[in-house]
Amino acid sequence: MTDTTTTQSEASVDETLAALTLEEKASLTSGADFWTTKSAPGVPSIMLTDGPHGVRKQRANGDHLGITDSVPATCFPPAVALGSSWDVTLLERVGIALGEESVAENVGVLLGPGINIKRSPLGGRNFEYLSEDPIASGVLGSALVRGLQSQGVGASLKHFAANNQEADRMRVSADIDERPLREIYLRGFQRVVEDEQPWTVMCSYNRLNGVYTSEDPWLLNTVLRDEWGFTGLVVSDWGAVNDRVAGVAAGLDLEMPSSSGRTNAQLVEAVRSGTLAESVLDTAARRAIDLAFKAVAGARDGATYDADAHHALAREAASASIVLLKNDGDLLPLATDAAVAVIGELARTPRYQGAGSSLINPTKLDNALDEIRVLAASGAENVTFAPGYAADGTEDAGLVAEAVVAASAASVAVVFVGVPAEQESEGFDRDHIELPAEQLALLDAVIAANPNTVVVLSNGGVVRLSGFADRVPAIVEGWLLGQAGGGAVADVLYGAVNPSGRLQETIPVRLQDTAAYLDFPGEHGHVRYGEGLFVGYRWFDAREIEVSFPYGHGLSYTTFDHSDVSVTTDAAGLVVRLTVTNTGSRDGAEVVQVYTSLPGSAVVRAPRELKGFTKVALAAGESRVVEVAVRREDLAYFDTRVGQWVVEGGSYTVEVGASSRDIRATSSVEVSGDAVRVTLDLNSSIGELMAHPVASQFILQAMASQGEGFTSALMDDPGMFKMMESFPIGRLAGFPGMGIDRDQIEQLLAAANAAS
Amino acid sequence: MTDTTTTQSEASVDETLAALTLEEKASLTSGADFWTTKSAPGVPSIMLTDGPHGVRKQRANGDHLGITDSVPATCFPPAVALGSSWDVTLLERVGIALGEESVAENVGVLLGPGINIKRSPLGGRNFEYLSEDPIASGVLGSALVRGLQSQGVGASLKHFAANNQEADRMRVSADIDERPLREIYLRGFQRVVEDEQPWTVMCSYNRLNGVYTSEDPWLLNTVLRDEWGFTGLVVSDWGAVNDRVAGVAAGLDLEMPSSSGRTNAQLVEAVRSGTLAESVLDTAARRAIDLAFKAVAGARDGATYDADAHHALAREAASASIVLLKNDGDLLPLATDAAVAVIGELARTPRYQGAGSSLINPTKLDNALDEIRVLAASGAENVTFAPGYAADGTEDAGLVAEAVVAASAASVAVVFVGVPAEQESEGFDRDHIELPAEQLALLDAVIAANPNTVVVLSNGGVVRLSGFADRVPAIVEGWLLGQAGGGAVADVLYGAVNPSGRLQETIPVRLQDTAAYLDFPGEHGHVRYGEGLFVGYRWFDAREIEVSFPYGHGLSYTTFDHSDVSVTTDAAGLVVRLTVTNTGSRDGAEVVQVYTSLPGSAVVRAPRELKGFTKVALAAGESRVVEVAVRREDLAYFDTRVGQWVVEGGSYTVEVGASSRDIRATSSVEVSGDAVRVTLDLNSSIGELMAHPVASQFILQAMASQGEGFTSALMDDPGMFKMMESFPIGRLAGFPGMGIDRDQIEQLLAAANAAS
Repeated sequence: MTDTTTTQSEASVDETLAALTLEEKASLTSGADFWTTKSAPGVPSIMLTDGPHGVRKQRANGDHLGITDSVPATCFPPAVALGSSWDVTLLERVGIALGEESVAENVGVLLGPGINIKRSPLGGRNFEYLSEDPIASGVLGSALVRGLQSQGVGASLKHFAANNQEADRMRVSADIDERPLREIYLRGFQRVVEDEQPWTVMCSYNRLNGVYTSEDPWLLNTVLRDEWGFTGLVVSDWGAVNDRVAGVAAGLDLEMPSSSGRTNAQLVEAVRSGTLAESVLDTAARRAIDLAFKAVAGARDGATYDADAHHALAREAASASIVLLKNDGDLLPLATDAAVAVIGELARTPRYQGAGSSLINPTKLDNALDEIRVLAASGAENVTFAPGYAADGTEDAGLVAEAVVAASAASVAVVFVGVPAEQESEGFDRDHIELPAEQLALLDAVIAANPNTVVVLSNGGVVRLSGFADRVPAIVEGWLLGQAGGGAVADVLYGAVNPSGRLQETIPVRLQDTAAYLDFPGEHGHVRYGEGLFVGYRWFDAREIEVSFPYGHGLSYTTFDHSDVSVTTDAAGLVVRLTVTNTGSRDGAEVVQVYTSLPGSAVVRAPRELKGFTKVALAAGESRVVEVAVRREDLAYFDTRVGQWVVEGGSYTVEVGASSRDIRATSSVEVSGDAVRVTLDLNSSIGELMAHPVASQFILQAMASQGEGFTSALMDDPGMFKMMESFPIGRLAGFPGMGIDRDQIEQLLAAANAAS
Repeated sequence: MTDTTTTQSEASVDETLAALTLEEKASLTSGADFWTTKSAPGVPSIMLTDGPHGVRKQRANGDHLGITDSVPATCFPPAVALGSSWDVTLLERVGIALGEESVAENVGVLLGPGINIKRSPLGGRNFEYLSEDPIASGVLGSALVRGLQSQGVGASLKHFAANNQEADRMRVSADIDERPLREIYLRGFQRVVEDEQPWTVMCSYNRLNGVYTSEDPWLLNTVLRDEWGFTGLVVSDWGAVNDRVAGVAAGLDLEMPSSSGRTNAQLVEAVRSGTLAESVLDTAARRAIDLAFKAVAGARDGATYDADAHHALAREAASASIVLLKNDGDLLPLATDAAVAVIGELARTPRYQGAGSSLINPTKLDNALDEIRVLAASGAENVTFAPGYAADGTEDAGLVAEAVVAASAASVAVVFVGVPAEQESEGFDRDHIELPAEQLALLDAVIAANPNTVVVLSNGGVVRLSGFADRVPAIVEGWLLGQAGGGAVADVLYGAVNPSGRLQETIPVRLQDTAAYLDFPGEHGHVRYGEGLFVGYRWFDAREIEVSFPYGHGLSYTTFDHSDVSVTTDAAGLVVRLTVTNTGSRDGAEVVQVYTSLPGSAVVRAPRELKGFTKVALAAGESRVVEVAVRREDLAYFDTRVGQWVVEGGSYTVEVGASSRDIRATSSVEVSGDAVRVTLDLNSSIGELMAHPVASQFILQAMASQGEGFTSALMDDPGMFKMMESFPIGRLAGFPGMGIDRDQIEQLLAAANAAS
């Protein structure tokens, strides 16, 4: 809990509210225009602007949709990169910097972070999301919120919920069973809300199991507020309101942008006609007032920020987010005096963010080519450059020939390839995960000319690497790295920074192997999440499918040893303690990952699930004891029979690893279970009764005494018993010749329930 | 339509009904005991007994659950085998024979066929079902019903519906989206009902999307009767009634077995209290009377059947159902004078049917070992036998050693392996698809001793073969083949019969590769059919997963050529015409399979779907022109927007093949589409409006004239348009600065709807 900015009392909010007319209260719960809220007597207007990885404050004379023209701000690495850092402290620092820039621009709420699950690699907005795992999303999302809100600026946790695709996002219903909904798609939101209490939560455009999230009382009130204790304001995604009155009734507090008074009038009319209780509108208005007061309290006239320092932070964050996928023969890092051919237009013209509402107008922009030349010992002389392909994707044999010449003349070729900007944006999904054909053709030609080829990737969602991964010694996953990414790539290539990023998304061998391949993005207004719990690595592990690079994977220029792993339990959960040793000759950082499973669980589970992690920096040769806490509640599954989170008792397997498929140590720990009380009735099966400590005795005795037909049929023949095990007692009792008295069975069941 | 047995007029039924008391009507809609219906004035009691592949008529002194003791009857091959014959005429003949035996036993309704889809190889009752494909299930199921009902005996099409597992079958809800429900799980039932009008349909135990099928008015009345035109009686599976009154109200006509008057009294009370309209009970009673009259009309006192002829038919059916999976180097057929080592207890002690309600007490029982000795030229001298493993599964090194000696001494080893009986039964599912470890160890030893090894399988559901399939030259899939299966196997091994069976179920490389692997059989009362439409080969093809043996696969001792394929259209659908030539030196039969797809379809589809097939017997060297009709309605998908089957217009790909992965010819044919009218409204997206022939003009004009903000934002920037394409017009119109008048948009939409 870092909510330190409440400076006006509840009483003040209530007094302000009490003085407002019905019309004023209605108008307070909507925008004044695209980016500001309405003011009312005693309530100032505040500004909300897009994030999440920079402050996208619209210029006054910008376009009407409010996307393309904004004041300069630091473009930090988008979430796809930040997530890959696995660095909680770093993300908190980025959050602080975002807060500083927001304050300087008089922005009260920065719209972010986005923590939706990367369900399919095709998701068009995956670059704005942190992970395919809910705990990683929740822990890292919390860090961003904590940092941002420490500056007196509100976060807007988005997009709540199950907005995992762009296709038909304004209407599509994400049809998800309750366990995957709770355990995968809501879990990260729950974590951030419970830990950090973001000022606002942004509901998504889509429907969830048939109901618009902007008007879903179960989602916005029952789950978010009643269960998780959210005390802030729910704002609509821009244009997400379907039915304003239904929305307010369901817990939606603020419509954005303005609907020019149209839906405000609907609210007033609904209250007047009695359709909507005024107290419900009051609640929304109270939250809007409270938010405005918080924002005003956080504002600081004349605040500025250090753009150079933020650029440096952006570079640090980018370098910590790069994932070294492969480095055969220690081809990397490059010697500073190596003759290097830099190939690919993306080295000179970087892709550093995705399109859509998160598009930042950066304060400055580095490119890798220039930064490589800076780091190379003799500067430009050792580094040649060939663009290799045209920026617009047209084939150009001359460019390839030029690149081949450069590669042949160099000791190492560094080829920059990536996903074209027009394929990655908010608003639509990708159709495939292939790199452009002309880039792959270039790569083939370069590899043929110089086997010492390093591939550097620029991409928001993962791309298929299986076409060439076994033919190049080194691959650097460079994501979209923000405005300072060029320098970060250079830092990693030359070893100025030892890479420490780890994958937050499995890189599959083929798109066809991925969990959502057959039902993404759905049709006719519905998308079925048919893979259930088995998203990302959970899917690949459960089906034992080969991947190109597994979740959690990432190399370093040094090596780490995990030893002396122990697992203990306390009231809070598990404590995993181990010694991590940097066994190489360079300083570096390891991401220790803790996965759990419960063999023989009574419910369906993935073979391993991430439950905790820590990133530890170690000097060459250094050893340190580290602890990773696993919260007891993170061991729970959602029991749909009782509508509760339940920790199943048993011997949990705890795996400590350097990736989901590089497990270094496996332990077991006994965990006591929560009691789940399931009442026996006539629908209880013979098998359930026989497994019940009390009922089994009662029932067997009763049957032996009266039910000759039953006992002879069932008890004398193991095969018959196995066949009849799933029969409900009530059904069997009804069969002719069973000799079972129904009333007596009911009495026995009642007695068993009472005794257990 | 083969309903030729109605011998009493509707008037007679109505008159009989009119004379009954309320109590008599209620009692008519329930059983008198386990296997007979209640009589009433003017209405005789009739007998229903288990099928489907034999007449399981309970002896009077049998056990109370009615499973284990029955009068002798011919045990024909279970559905797993019959389906693999792909032989409509053969199945009709088996149906006729079943009808003859039913008449001889005074059985009015034989409970079968079962046509549920084999969703997972683990399904415990897969041996009772025909296929993983709905068209194959429907066409072959129709043949069985047609044959049976031609003898004046009623069929009971079961288990309606979505009873695709045994686990928790009395309670579990099969949660299935409407397209897979309609297109996969109901499609076969629809086919049989519409074509053959079975006297009865048996509702299943399970729930479907939360509602017990025994009390689902949508399933039993809306779909079955209103849409498909079913005129017969719905009987409960034995013990499937949850709430009798709700059942009758929903369209359940007959409860079986007797509930000893308890639920009859509930019905009477419901009518008296007005909870249930008497007319609804009358409808059920009328159907019960009609069924009794039909059964009586079909009865023939003193009827008998020719048990030897039926045994011969059972052998013919079994031999036509065996699938020759592999036959490298033409190891099969065996020369009659070959020195053969028959290995495996299953050769002597056959598994020929599964356990549960379909368990037949056979009139006689052949085993493969004896029949092989009959066919071998010098009889027992050329054939040695070693059991190889103990019948009870215990390891026995002595048996293996003995088998190795026998294999070493012979020119060919024929090893019988299979699934133990206790693993395959109604009432529970399998846990795995592995052959027993001791059998696999035996097989390894035999292969090492004699590479000329033939594997003969006995199994109701498929088993994993990938552990040895590449190490043996020949594999014979012998399923469960009924009482004459031993002779059928011998016939195929020695070439007395040229194998012609084809797989109705894909044999996967691994269980982990199968569609339902992660959600079968569900938990806590629900099973999500997460794979949607992609069941069986649809899954493997769509995900491009390697299989051991694909759907439709099966070899012959001869070879067939497909040539001169043409596809034409007529009002009924497609006519696929081709010439099939037996290009080898033995007589044989080919199964010509027709699959279709629609590239670029507007809806999700499998890469190929079976739409028709024919089995054609050809003498060596013979050519014949064959036709396969594809019904137009079988090209349709179920459009959930309008709740109708819709044939999408376009260029369909028609593949003709010898299996789903042995396509011999590919054609295209243009098919005109059904009109689907989707009304435009404020929720229609910009993209939909722009794609609409009328609306696009209206909207563009209107926007150009008034919506400056809109047009400048959208139309001047292709990237922006792609991002905004999925915005509903109503949402966009509400944005500030768009300059779009909402009322005018609505008028334009109305005009576009009127004009299209």
